[in-house]
Amino acid sequence: MQITVGIDIGGTNTAIGFVDKEGNCLADIVTPTKEYTEIEPYMKNLCGLIADELKKHNDWELMGIGIGAPNANYHRGTIEEAPNLSWKGTVHFCKLMGEYFPNIKIAITNDANAAAMGEMIFGAAKGMKDFVVITLGTGLGSGIVVNGDLVYGHDGFAGEVGHTTVFMDGRQCGCGKKGCLETYASATGIVRTISELLCNSRKPSTLREIPNDKLTSYDVFKAYQQGDEIAKECFDYTGKILGMKLADVVCHTSPATIFLFGGPAKAGDAIIKPTKASMEEYLLPIFKNKVDIKLSGLMDKNAAVLGASALAWKELEK
Amino acid sequence: MQITVGIDIGGTNTAIGFVDKEGNCLADIVTPTKEYTEIEPYMKNLCGLIADELKKHNDWELMGIGIGAPNANYHRGTIEEAPNLSWKGTVHFCKLMGEYFPNIKIAITNDANAAAMGEMIFGAAKGMKDFVVITLGTGLGSGIVVNGDLVYGHDGFAGEVGHTTVFMDGRQCGCGKKGCLETYASATGIVRTISELLCNSRKPSTLREIPNDKLTSYDVFKAYQQGDEIAKECFDYTGKILGMKLADVVCHTSPATIFLFGGPAKAGDAIIKPTKASMEEYLLPIFKNKVDIKLSGLMDKNAAVLGASALAWKELEK
Repeated sequence: MQITVGIDIGGTNTAIGFVDKEGNCLADIVTPTKEYTEIEPYMKNLCGLIADELKKHNDWELMGIGIGAPNANYHRGTIEEAPNLSWKGTVHFCKLMGEYFPNIKIAITNDANAAAMGEMIFGAAKGMKDFVVITLGTGLGSGIVVNGDLVYGHDGFAGEVGHTTVFMDGRQCGCGKKGCLETYASATGIVRTISELLCNSRKPSTLREIPNDKLTSYDVFKAYQQGDEIAKECFDYTGKILGMKLADVVCHTSPATIFLFGGPAKAGDAIIKPTKASMEEYLLPIFKNKVDIKLSGLMDKNAAVLGASALAWKELEK
Repeated sequence: MQITVGIDIGGTNTAIGFVDKEGNCLADIVTPTKEYTEIEPYMKNLCGLIADELKKHNDWELMGIGIGAPNANYHRGTIEEAPNLSWKGTVHFCKLMGEYFPNIKIAITNDANAAAMGEMIFGAAKGMKDFVVITLGTGLGSGIVVNGDLVYGHDGFAGEVGHTTVFMDGRQCGCGKKGCLETYASATGIVRTISELLCNSRKPSTLREIPNDKLTSYDVFKAYQQGDEIAKECFDYTGKILGMKLADVVCHTSPATIFLFGGPAKAGDAIIKPTKASMEEYLLPIFKNKVDIKLSGLMDKNAAVLGASALAWKELEK
């Protein structure tokens, strides 16, 4: 049976999946990332684990390897200056891995691009040519698909909608800029908004009982479900900002559907309804009522590994 | 000799060019648009003029026809609800034209997309895979090229950067929305800004001598050249806004170069310098110092006709 390996590199752990063409994960392994301060021993461990698993299955034929990682560059096969990984500078990931798996196609891209690839091959975007995946987590990532292909751009880093500007002198972002979309529309953005709203309002809210540095976007969602008015205001505001910037996305590449993925997207209508309303408000008339906002089709699956595997399958088509 | 016909449909006139593969315009014709309130007589006149010219040149071989027009839809071959044309609703332009030129490839796209195509085939973007053309005129148009192809998107209307939002409750735009980029960065945007600055400032300016409804962006440029401080402020502000939104464009598709085209772009450094400075300020660090802003390579040429012709040449490659 033909399989690809999908690898999701996170700051703490690395997940490895062995995935068939239908998107079934036949086996998976989790191994630490953080413990390896140097890339060489990390790579040796990673490739050893993959080789060991492959040996157990004589009927598997390894077709390709796909990797999703922060700050990964598809064009160069590198991970560059990733703030949450120990390996500093530029890591030539695909080249290093190729020494262990010669003659196997190996491709890398950032996590959000991998999510978009997973959506296209195994998820809700099957058969779609033009769509966008927005991953809401600590930050906001995006993968933009145009005419059936991921947009990598000139330098391989395209699809950074999280760092478009909402307000010229807005909230300080981790990237060094001010007013980036991800400071408003992300798990941390939601927490920043609720803190602001709790300060400004005198309405009662159970969220006041939680210390500020313990507040999570999930707490805000639980409060929303219990009818908390400030929590509702918080999702409405988040949706207003996100929707306005998604209208900008539509002006650029005119997708059929925008998929939301990740923790805050699990709030469902609480976030999707105000986002959709705001997007429509800010859309150029020719785009109105043409663009869907939907939950990712891989919400409850091992999306990161499936996305990385999808990247490998997609490469094989080229 | 192989040639294509490039047609630029404007509200007042239609320009027709007969263009060889090197971008030489071998003959051109201008004919009225406005006088034809119905599409059928317009089309009969247009196609008659083309056929007559072709008959004069036995050595020409017509390979294809490309059209640039407002609100043109590449996918459907239509012009849809164009506010400045008399033909209302949806005009099936390519189909109607095909009745006069059967077996000839005919393609249509909007003016800014045609400009991008012209830049790629005949202009300064030759050989570039990822770039953006911004056309500054009455409005702000944009053509986005990704991996060597124009981005049309799901519905064929992609590339409307002029209608991304700068301020959530900003200037009223002709499209019905508020705060669109083109209300700040365009010939009319520059006039709106100078009017605002003249109201707010007490500095002397020769621009105060011109009645408000006579002021043009060219007047502002002339004043700038004579050292007018308010005119300089006006270009600085225009560049600040445009640069911030171009940083957003880079976040989407990561172009190598952004080309500026059209009247206000002729101000050169007066507009390009503050735009570049602002773009760098608002760029995500991984994009900084990687993206050029340049004048179009077709500034003094019949760019609209060349762009339409380039579209036809490009179609022949498919």
